[in-house]
Amino acid sequence: MTLDVGALSLEQKAALLSGRDFWSTRSLPEVGAESVVLTDGPHGVRYQSGESDHLGIHDSEPATCFPPAVAVGASWEPEVAEQVGAAVGREARALGVHVVLGPGVNIKRSPLCGRNFEYYSEDPLISGVLGAAHVRGLQAEGPGASVKHFAANNQETERMRVSADVDERTLREIYLPAFERVVTESAPATVMCSYNKVNGVYASENRWLLTDVLRDEWGFSGAVVSDWGAVSNRVAALAAGMDLEMPGSGGVTDAEIVAAVRAGELDEAVVDQAVGRVLGLQNRIEAPTGGLDVEGDHALARSLAAQCVTLLKNDDAVLPLEGTGSLAVIGAFATSPRYQGGGSSHITPTRVDTALDAIRELAGDRPVTAAAGFPIDGSGDAAALLAEAVAVASAAEVAVVFAGLGDREESEGFDRKTLDLPAEQVALIRAVAAAAPRTVVVLSHGGVVSLEGWHDRVDAILDGGLLGQAGGGALADVLFGVVNPSGHLAETIPLRLQDTPAYLNFPGEAGHVRYGEGVMVGYRYYSTVEREVRYPFGHGLSYTTFTTDAVSVTATGDDTATVAVTVTNTGTRAGKHVVQVYVATDAGSVRRPVRELRAFTKVALEPGETRAVELTLDRRAFAYYDVPRGQWVVAPGEYRIQVGANAAEVLAEASLSLVGDVLAAELSMDATVGDWFSHPVAGPALMRTLAASMTPDQARQAEQNPDGLKMVESMPMRQFLSFVGTALPTALLEDLIAQSKVAG
Amino acid sequence: MTLDVGALSLEQKAALLSGRDFWSTRSLPEVGAESVVLTDGPHGVRYQSGESDHLGIHDSEPATCFPPAVAVGASWEPEVAEQVGAAVGREARALGVHVVLGPGVNIKRSPLCGRNFEYYSEDPLISGVLGAAHVRGLQAEGPGASVKHFAANNQETERMRVSADVDERTLREIYLPAFERVVTESAPATVMCSYNKVNGVYASENRWLLTDVLRDEWGFSGAVVSDWGAVSNRVAALAAGMDLEMPGSGGVTDAEIVAAVRAGELDEAVVDQAVGRVLGLQNRIEAPTGGLDVEGDHALARSLAAQCVTLLKNDDAVLPLEGTGSLAVIGAFATSPRYQGGGSSHITPTRVDTALDAIRELAGDRPVTAAAGFPIDGSGDAAALLAEAVAVASAAEVAVVFAGLGDREESEGFDRKTLDLPAEQVALIRAVAAAAPRTVVVLSHGGVVSLEGWHDRVDAILDGGLLGQAGGGALADVLFGVVNPSGHLAETIPLRLQDTPAYLNFPGEAGHVRYGEGVMVGYRYYSTVEREVRYPFGHGLSYTTFTTDAVSVTATGDDTATVAVTVTNTGTRAGKHVVQVYVATDAGSVRRPVRELRAFTKVALEPGETRAVELTLDRRAFAYYDVPRGQWVVAPGEYRIQVGANAAEVLAEASLSLVGDVLAAELSMDATVGDWFSHPVAGPALMRTLAASMTPDQARQAEQNPDGLKMVESMPMRQFLSFVGTALPTALLEDLIAQSKVAG
Repeated sequence: MTLDVGALSLEQKAALLSGRDFWSTRSLPEVGAESVVLTDGPHGVRYQSGESDHLGIHDSEPATCFPPAVAVGASWEPEVAEQVGAAVGREARALGVHVVLGPGVNIKRSPLCGRNFEYYSEDPLISGVLGAAHVRGLQAEGPGASVKHFAANNQETERMRVSADVDERTLREIYLPAFERVVTESAPATVMCSYNKVNGVYASENRWLLTDVLRDEWGFSGAVVSDWGAVSNRVAALAAGMDLEMPGSGGVTDAEIVAAVRAGELDEAVVDQAVGRVLGLQNRIEAPTGGLDVEGDHALARSLAAQCVTLLKNDDAVLPLEGTGSLAVIGAFATSPRYQGGGSSHITPTRVDTALDAIRELAGDRPVTAAAGFPIDGSGDAAALLAEAVAVASAAEVAVVFAGLGDREESEGFDRKTLDLPAEQVALIRAVAAAAPRTVVVLSHGGVVSLEGWHDRVDAILDGGLLGQAGGGALADVLFGVVNPSGHLAETIPLRLQDTPAYLNFPGEAGHVRYGEGVMVGYRYYSTVEREVRYPFGHGLSYTTFTTDAVSVTATGDDTATVAVTVTNTGTRAGKHVVQVYVATDAGSVRRPVRELRAFTKVALEPGETRAVELTLDRRAFAYYDVPRGQWVVAPGEYRIQVGANAAEVLAEASLSLVGDVLAAELSMDATVGDWFSHPVAGPALMRTLAASMTPDQARQAEQNPDGLKMVESMPMRQFLSFVGTALPTALLEDLIAQSKVAG
Repeated sequence: MTLDVGALSLEQKAALLSGRDFWSTRSLPEVGAESVVLTDGPHGVRYQSGESDHLGIHDSEPATCFPPAVAVGASWEPEVAEQVGAAVGREARALGVHVVLGPGVNIKRSPLCGRNFEYYSEDPLISGVLGAAHVRGLQAEGPGASVKHFAANNQETERMRVSADVDERTLREIYLPAFERVVTESAPATVMCSYNKVNGVYASENRWLLTDVLRDEWGFSGAVVSDWGAVSNRVAALAAGMDLEMPGSGGVTDAEIVAAVRAGELDEAVVDQAVGRVLGLQNRIEAPTGGLDVEGDHALARSLAAQCVTLLKNDDAVLPLEGTGSLAVIGAFATSPRYQGGGSSHITPTRVDTALDAIRELAGDRPVTAAAGFPIDGSGDAAALLAEAVAVASAAEVAVVFAGLGDREESEGFDRKTLDLPAEQVALIRAVAAAAPRTVVVLSHGGVVSLEGWHDRVDAILDGGLLGQAGGGALADVLFGVVNPSGHLAETIPLRLQDTPAYLNFPGEAGHVRYGEGVMVGYRYYSTVEREVRYPFGHGLSYTTFTTDAVSVTATGDDTATVAVTVTNTGTRAGKHVVQVYVATDAGSVRRPVRELRAFTKVALEPGETRAVELTLDRRAFAYYDVPRGQWVVAPGEYRIQVGANAAEVLAEASLSLVGDVLAAELSMDATVGDWFSHPVAGPALMRTLAASMTPDQARQAEQNPDGLKMVESMPMRQFLSFVGTALPTALLEDLIAQSKVAG
């Protein structure tokens, strides 16, 4: 297919730059361009053949609901993300969909964000690695991806107009790297710009974001598509690099584009470039394959979901459920599972497993009783339900309580105000724990929930997040040990909402949200301020045990290295272990988090098996973003390479000394005394000169007081001269300035 | 004296706008203008007749060193500040000084700031009330004041070029109100602009700060003077409202002003206006009175200092020292007192009291032994000194340890890195506490120090801050009960540096410091995040006891009130009690601190005396600064008026309901669904219209789900219409928009 853009009229070109309707682009038979179909994702295909919307209000065609990102994040396993992507890609192709919106790689800045269930982690490395894997899996099947929401869209409150006020180092180190990795490693067909403003400029009109960074620095060559309705000023958006407006505006904004070009306010070359990028999506058009593999995909969804379950607590090995005594299955989520979030990603599932059914199946002859325990979504008699549950629990050997958040507690579109479980559920868990010999709690939720008020009373906690339509089966698989849990927290569970890093600055006010915590997001914050948490980022137990030995680091270049570590399964079950590599340093002129995750891998080990694992640390694993210089800088100094059980517990570490980037300050009369005296060349020269001009008495004084310069070190040299006068001749300073320029 | 500016040449006028030298302005006999002498202050006159500097390096003429602001802040007593100001004013006049620089009313954002000793408090009300009192006292004696450092100069690190990045609400509510109060209540002769940038613009060139806010809003009519060397671009500074550059530039910048006017880049009227303001300082010129009242002022300094001492802890009433057993006076600060800070405010004292001498005097026949205990400023044998001190302590009934920070640990010009006392002192206190039957610690320091590692081991702690040259006597007065302590903390003592609100954002990096904590400074932070502290803001014990009863609040207008409270001295000694009134509310669209100090007064009570106290709460006591509206807003709602023992302990409270400012959102198609539906007129109208268009089935669904709008409430109405279509007719919306405009 050859598309000759040059032959098109301006009107035809403008028409290609916005949707025909809610879910498709315009066709243009003259150049052989067909309509491209886009649908919501990312953990399933939300293909609407009837009324259209972007809020999960109207129905969509049935498709498999795979585990949402909150669960995939906990897998710490790119293969899981890739298989989700591939399966969604196959179903999309079957349904005639060419671009599936997602994955979402925004950072979980606050646990209150209503859309956290669509995102992977509070950490940019996990988010980027899993997002890139999802795109790789999806696009290998044909359809294109749309990595979203670009960028700094970390809350639902006022999401369509709030300005995320965030400094560039924080953007570069926390909020952009996941996008950068997805773009550079997996070349998504599209990038979706977000609704919000970034530092006062709508993401859809933010040229720095959409062109300078995304295209010029990262080399993105696909199309930028607007989040549905994110365009405020179509012409400004186009000029900034926003190619495809969705949904269509019925021609209104096409006319604006045409008028702007005619008035000379917009270069037609900008239109041509955008048209070229939008037409690039034609490559994603393939004939629908027709028919879903409903059974196969449901089984896949179950096995993937089981990889995402995190065992938070397991006192006296109450799990897996291996006895023969009776089981009480309590809680409404055991029969009405919460397995996906509300909003644009809401899938019409092909079928839904309940945990109760799956438990009954795996329990065999073991007696299983059940009770709803609490009302969901505000209906039912809480007291009666609780009493019934306590009676059931008292008669059982182990009670398994399915608790969590309902659709009313969290969703796309609004943020939570609390981390608490609904009060009826807390009361239920406490009552059941008091009544049953052993109590296991299974959690279903999109955002982090507090374990306050009941954590210490129960024996085990299994955290499922949201696991997709086969989650009920997956949870049963883990409860009974059919699958050994290997999930790890991709987000810290704090003790209190007040302890969270964005507590005072979320969700902002007066149209602005200040990212006051800077790069200190998630575990970076808790570890740096030494704040106790309930469970740290990276925490996750197994039914077996692992040891980590022989950590060593080898430099492979000026600022790259490999980390070698030996892991052993010291227990009696096969299991998967996550090797988490953090880098810790004080080097550089910026405030560093105590440690940052820089590499990870998940290793499957048979009982007794030992494996040597090697991980790579690239230059960026050591670098910080230097805003005045506009570049990534590796500071010379010591770096500790820490293998952690989680972000708070270092199992073993090794040290590495890096030459780094030697960046002496460029000297000037406005540079400070501190800059001057710490400069490798100028400092000693100045000290010699000053010493030569001193009287013996002054020299003795200076020797006795090595901190003498401390009080003036932030003073610009220009002002310092008024104190030392001719002791530092201007000619010398000018000469040193010239030398520093050459060196720089 | 009539000064005819019109008759001056441009060159003559420009010459009047910068110093003749370091400490004086140019004279111009043609118009009868004499040279105005300015010197450093604020707690004494630093008049240099020899070599000049602004860093406390060269000597100055002897003058009385009164208590620095850190101590005056702890007095919570405007009369103390006013008497310090008046005494400094008298000495200035005696020495021929016309303007004394100070007071400093910057907010203690971080306890690490090296210049905190020159500032009063972490709270803007205390800072403003005390600063205004100081200026009142000073200027009543003749000389002019220079309230400083305007503005957002809250650190020493990079102080000459760092940009304080701080949002307007935070400036208006925290960093500017003390300046505003001093300017509007006490009309200082000058305001000194600070070195730093505010949101990227040098304070010296910040027209918003120096003209829009300072003059147009607050009505300041005096001269703005630069901090010494704070001018970067003289012409830009003049245009922004910076009148007098200090020190002089030897004519360089005068020529720049002349050139700018000649080139048409600067309106000569701006020059004339600045000249008029600078010549206004002529009013401060009076004949020197000659001769200081050295003895009288020293006695005054002692009595004022005693009002500033805070009793933090007093187990089993170990203080006052009333027994007859022997006293061990330990610690180098007992004989080499630390009583003022380093830098431009450093006074050459007329004499200095030591605590040891004063204790010996008051002890009468009681045996007093002494030991240095620890080295100061790095010299001496710590182990030997400690051993000697322990021996002395073991033989005494009560050991009094004089601990604190030396001149090397803190000063103008640099910030601390730690809150810890030097390790030798911590070791000493622990060893003495283990050896002596009773141990009292007396602290001397400019910035807050941690009490970690020894707090629980000692019986009493007396916090002196820095008390001026007579501090030794004042501390003895309090130790022996000659004066009953009545100081209260004007700054929180945290448990750990990591708990402080600016911990992650101090002192910034890459030329910027982000005020990430916003308005949550000091106790506003600790109380809002419910973080435990060592001693809260406002804490202070007495040798007597007080009760607080019968709190009542009476509205005196739409948003003003009086608070009545009855306080009683229930102990056996006369003493002073501070009534602290905090206001607490959740009203309004911005995040409020849990409580804010809005009024206070100090009451002297004889034993058994009861006093009814009335305090006034003005409109600002209830208001927040609404940035989009650019005005102070009192939100309608409930306000709790809390009388506190300190910021963490409410003794009694009363409620007040305020009508406040009814500010409905102005509706537009860009206003959110939330704005529309919460609007008092539009909301009900929309609900009626929507209900009318519903099928019975839809109506039932809507009734069952009252949160139905939650997900779309942040969506602009323009986009919401694409979901509800014709159910909300455009004509209705346009009508409601028009109505909202009329109402607004």
